[in-house]
Amino acid sequence: MRFSLTASLVALLMSGPALADVSLRDKAKELFQPIPSTPPAIPGETATPEKLALGKMLYFEPRLSQTHDVSCADCHNLSMGGVDGGKLSGGHNAQLAGREVLTVMNAIFNKSQYWDGRASDLADQVVNSVMANPKAMLKTRGGPMPINPTEHAAAKQRAVEQFKRIPDYVTAFKKAFPEQSDPVAYDNFGRAIALFEATLITPDAPFDRWLKGDDQALSDAQKEGLKLFIDKGCATCHNGVNVGGAMFARFGVVKQPAAEFLPADDWGRFAVTKAIADKYAYKVPSLRNVELTAPYFHTGATFDLRKAVAVMGESQLGAQLSADEIDKIVAFLNSLTGRQPEVVLPILPPRTGPPVAQAQ
Amino acid sequence: MRFSLTASLVALLMSGPALADVSLRDKAKELFQPIPSTPPAIPGETATPEKLALGKMLYFEPRLSQTHDVSCADCHNLSMGGVDGGKLSGGHNAQLAGREVLTVMNAIFNKSQYWDGRASDLADQVVNSVMANPKAMLKTRGGPMPINPTEHAAAKQRAVEQFKRIPDYVTAFKKAFPEQSDPVAYDNFGRAIALFEATLITPDAPFDRWLKGDDQALSDAQKEGLKLFIDKGCATCHNGVNVGGAMFARFGVVKQPAAEFLPADDWGRFAVTKAIADKYAYKVPSLRNVELTAPYFHTGATFDLRKAVAVMGESQLGAQLSADEIDKIVAFLNSLTGRQPEVVLPILPPRTGPPVAQAQ
Repeated sequence: MRFSLTASLVALLMSGPALADVSLRDKAKELFQPIPSTPPAIPGETATPEKLALGKMLYFEPRLSQTHDVSCADCHNLSMGGVDGGKLSGGHNAQLAGREVLTVMNAIFNKSQYWDGRASDLADQVVNSVMANPKAMLKTRGGPMPINPTEHAAAKQRAVEQFKRIPDYVTAFKKAFPEQSDPVAYDNFGRAIALFEATLITPDAPFDRWLKGDDQALSDAQKEGLKLFIDKGCATCHNGVNVGGAMFARFGVVKQPAAEFLPADDWGRFAVTKAIADKYAYKVPSLRNVELTAPYFHTGATFDLRKAVAVMGESQLGAQLSADEIDKIVAFLNSLTGRQPEVVLPILPPRTGPPVAQAQ
Repeated sequence: MRFSLTASLVALLMSGPALADVSLRDKAKELFQPIPSTPPAIPGETATPEKLALGKMLYFEPRLSQTHDVSCADCHNLSMGGVDGGKLSGGHNAQLAGREVLTVMNAIFNKSQYWDGRASDLADQVVNSVMANPKAMLKTRGGPMPINPTEHAAAKQRAVEQFKRIPDYVTAFKKAFPEQSDPVAYDNFGRAIALFEATLITPDAPFDRWLKGDDQALSDAQKEGLKLFIDKGCATCHNGVNVGGAMFARFGVVKQPAAEFLPADDWGRFAVTKAIADKYAYKVPSLRNVELTAPYFHTGATFDLRKAVAVMGESQLGAQLSADEIDKIVAFLNSLTGRQPEVVLPILPPRTGPPVAQAQ
């Protein structure tokens, strides 16, 4: 009897941390989901090997720009967490983009694309970034979009014509879209690239392994950080499979951040919806791989993740986080770094001519 | 007897093409060698997996530039035959380089690097392109070099200091150079990248398979093109394993080419040797993968390989090649396209801060 009591007591003492894990995990599982181990399907699209091969070629294709020297991979660098890590990105004619580049990794899990959510899916994001005509709005499946002339700046019809002159691309488009009679077509660029981008996922982060039941995958500090992340309210917006990417929120909802973080002249989502409530609202970015995606905020205002956490605590939650709390939250955030996709560089068709000057 | 005579006659008739192959091959083997199937060694260097891994990381590393946005891979694009295919390449601050980019593929087999041969080996080429200080000559193992501020423009000591602040690079340099106490050092960037670049070779071109005895590897037109290439004198300069890359030659030795091909203000190798004989002399470029490396000449003046062959015939050999001769020579040149290396993108350490402004 005494023996069995002692044994029970030992079992109880030993189950202490395990019980805490179970309770924290239950709470976490209501808020977050792990990145799946295989790429998700895009509704209405079949990811054939031919479409994926074409999408990968186009992702690395500098000719998908007015001057034939800006590819998706330039700013969404797959060696660097899917970002370029510069303060602001240089596109066509070395013009700076208006906002910090968002990562392509796990972007398939975001509910919308861009900081202002102006693209509803990856295919729309692709054509919005690649094509440019400052005199017109771009018509997409998500509705009309303002044009971004600072990225690839390829005029729609001109881009299509130029690819039709590259025999290996004509073949690749035919194989990817065998049911179409004229497959080198505007929409197909976005469809193929989106399918390739959907393969750029980063499973097996320590946090995901822990969510699935591996108690050892997180350190104690990381578990405490996760608890703080939930209890302080970070997870109110940063949740779901991407720990973000699912909603919009006003930046500075409790306290106005400094102008370096939130410049007055960029009104965020207001430009898309024209709703006063969306003034200074931005997409809540995914925190997946946040360790790899400095600098932070839509302004790229800091490379310091501790600083970014402090600013968010203050501006969004009205909380002055202590140095210890910030350390723990950052420790948790570092557990969101997953296995980066292994990408073999595609071999692109040879150049057949210089970029053709575009009609304005 | 009659039977045996007929058999001999048939054998003789059948051996006609085979004999021609043998004779052409014997001649070709005196002039050319196939690309080996494995990367060549660099004298004095051991290509450990750790050095190769570091070299690959650095090759794709945008932080190896003043503004942290120009990597080797940007202009020497491994998806596009090792060139960028633009007319002239944009480097630091989108400045145009002075001459058309030369391919990194098989560059290890060239006797010198750059159009003017100012670097004696790949390691020197790397530090010359990466480092920049307009007030000083760069001291390399090949002697002092003029500086090119238009490429990566990273100041020597500043670049080294910045890499010392990235923990994963400190580890990678230590593993690559375990015998050194302070391995994040200037020369080691060039050594590691050169070792990686030596793996960028393109074996198994149809021409190489034919050189090794496979009669079917070249079409009849390609064999006739090869014969013309030898008989007309192209192979006098374009020979060896790289079908070029082994010597310098004055451009316009028989007839001055048009200014678009040979602008008067670029004196070529003269800038390196100050010898009058080297005025307008350039390295004879390798013709390996020439199908993939348009546009052509140090000016990138044409994307049309037929045009390039015609200009060379006229200016270097005093020959007006017929359309049929040009077709056959181009058919032969297209047989120089080898198997492109399969490159898995490296994963680079996360950004730890913005580029540090350089002292002037």
